[in-house]
Amino acid sequence: MELWYTEKQTKDFGITAKVKTTHHTEKTDFQQLDMIETEEWGNMLVLDGMVMTTDKDEFVYHEMIAHVPLFTHPNPKHVLVVGGGDGGVIREVLKHKSVEKATLVEIDGKVIEYSKKYLPSIAGSLDDPRVEVKVDDGFMHIAKSEKDYDVIMVDSTEPVGPAVNLFSKGFYAGISKALKDEGIFVAQTDNPWFKADLIHQIYHDVKEIFPETNLYTANIPTYPSGLWTFTMGSKIHDPLKVKKERFEEIDTKYYTDEIHYASFALPKFVKDLTK
Amino acid sequence: MELWYTEKQTKDFGITAKVKTTHHTEKTDFQQLDMIETEEWGNMLVLDGMVMTTDKDEFVYHEMIAHVPLFTHPNPKHVLVVGGGDGGVIREVLKHKSVEKATLVEIDGKVIEYSKKYLPSIAGSLDDPRVEVKVDDGFMHIAKSEKDYDVIMVDSTEPVGPAVNLFSKGFYAGISKALKDEGIFVAQTDNPWFKADLIHQIYHDVKEIFPETNLYTANIPTYPSGLWTFTMGSKIHDPLKVKKERFEEIDTKYYTDEIHYASFALPKFVKDLTK
Repeated sequence: MELWYTEKQTKDFGITAKVKTTHHTEKTDFQQLDMIETEEWGNMLVLDGMVMTTDKDEFVYHEMIAHVPLFTHPNPKHVLVVGGGDGGVIREVLKHKSVEKATLVEIDGKVIEYSKKYLPSIAGSLDDPRVEVKVDDGFMHIAKSEKDYDVIMVDSTEPVGPAVNLFSKGFYAGISKALKDEGIFVAQTDNPWFKADLIHQIYHDVKEIFPETNLYTANIPTYPSGLWTFTMGSKIHDPLKVKKERFEEIDTKYYTDEIHYASFALPKFVKDLTK
Repeated sequence: MELWYTEKQTKDFGITAKVKTTHHTEKTDFQQLDMIETEEWGNMLVLDGMVMTTDKDEFVYHEMIAHVPLFTHPNPKHVLVVGGGDGGVIREVLKHKSVEKATLVEIDGKVIEYSKKYLPSIAGSLDDPRVEVKVDDGFMHIAKSEKDYDVIMVDSTEPVGPAVNLFSKGFYAGISKALKDEGIFVAQTDNPWFKADLIHQIYHDVKEIFPETNLYTANIPTYPSGLWTFTMGSKIHDPLKVKKERFEEIDTKYYTDEIHYASFALPKFVKDLTK
């Protein structure tokens, strides 16, 4: 018998992947969690029917959400990751020597548990001594924080289910308060082919709060359309004015200093969403 | 009844699109040709089971294969398109005022015929007076040409079936001979996630013949992995040294002068294929 997992990315279009094994399937307190092994992408974490990460292409998302803000900030010491229970963003954050402490606030402990079990090359860094893991509501954590962080990354699911609060203007205002004076915020903000309105809305919401707001992109093959956007809000620092000397040698498979700048060059139909 | 068209992009992974209508299906002298209407992408041309172009995302491929070489060349007058029977590349070529004549050499007249019928916004420019359409073998046409063209674009299918000769070192040598002294050549060269070896091979074959050889990328959601590469060989002109003033105002949805430069910034795992 051949088993294929199909994610409908829109009601009329999807991706389909041949499945070797279903490792785990569970309705957690927050969402449907499935961990499957696919022939093409290796192990794959699926939440509420949407691919979150896979062994083969996870590096793109995790490198790009982490290194772009971390190299834009001149000296990031305290970093917060909201969501991101698979641990991939934390792994990339720890590649920066300046980082003294990285806090992960993930609402669903089951994501952490099963990522450690089935995605060890992604989740392994969660046990690093510089990392603090909290199973808690990211929205509430932000509300309680004040000038605590240099960089905050929002590595959430789509704005349905547990992540819906993480796409609101109130949340972005809270993040601004939780950041220090030179602070930088970045969030994954979906794809411009199927979610143009969402990107337009987020960009303009963030821009009301952060003087330097910029959109950048990366190619992630298992995410809808293969073109993913990140919205970055910065209190002072301009990501395009980072001096070449600032880039330290770190081990990556996607991110480079050239990609840092180039990822902000937007296709015209995407750039139009920022108008 | 719901009909879904699934393209297996590898043996273990694919895309799937809901179908409204099958407009035409035919085994031509060269390949299997299917023209379907999908809910998500509009009309879609499928050759030998592979998506060639769709109403909704065709602009990315056609703009990027055309404008990058055409703005790199200081004064392109005579342009040749090998393949490209849907007419999309020709439509973009004609946006450049310097172009006096654009020749299309497509081996399969049926592709032209059904593109004109079902993809009129793509194929409409084939009737422009500056355009010469030849139903002929592109490989043979190149072999007969000498210093005839300023820019040659190879808009072929994958290196299976009728296009297999178009991915050979002999063909690139023929193209160099067919180009004038300042000539530029570009070909679509598949995706780095599933066809890394092919890209590595083509890049190094082209580099043996053209002093300036560069790879660039674009996001095309209906093509495998969503990240497409183009390999450009140039006798003299460096695409990264194009002066800002050179960019004329043309109507595009993807290409911009910023994208021109940024598209050459390669993700590290792609850049490694050029080593």
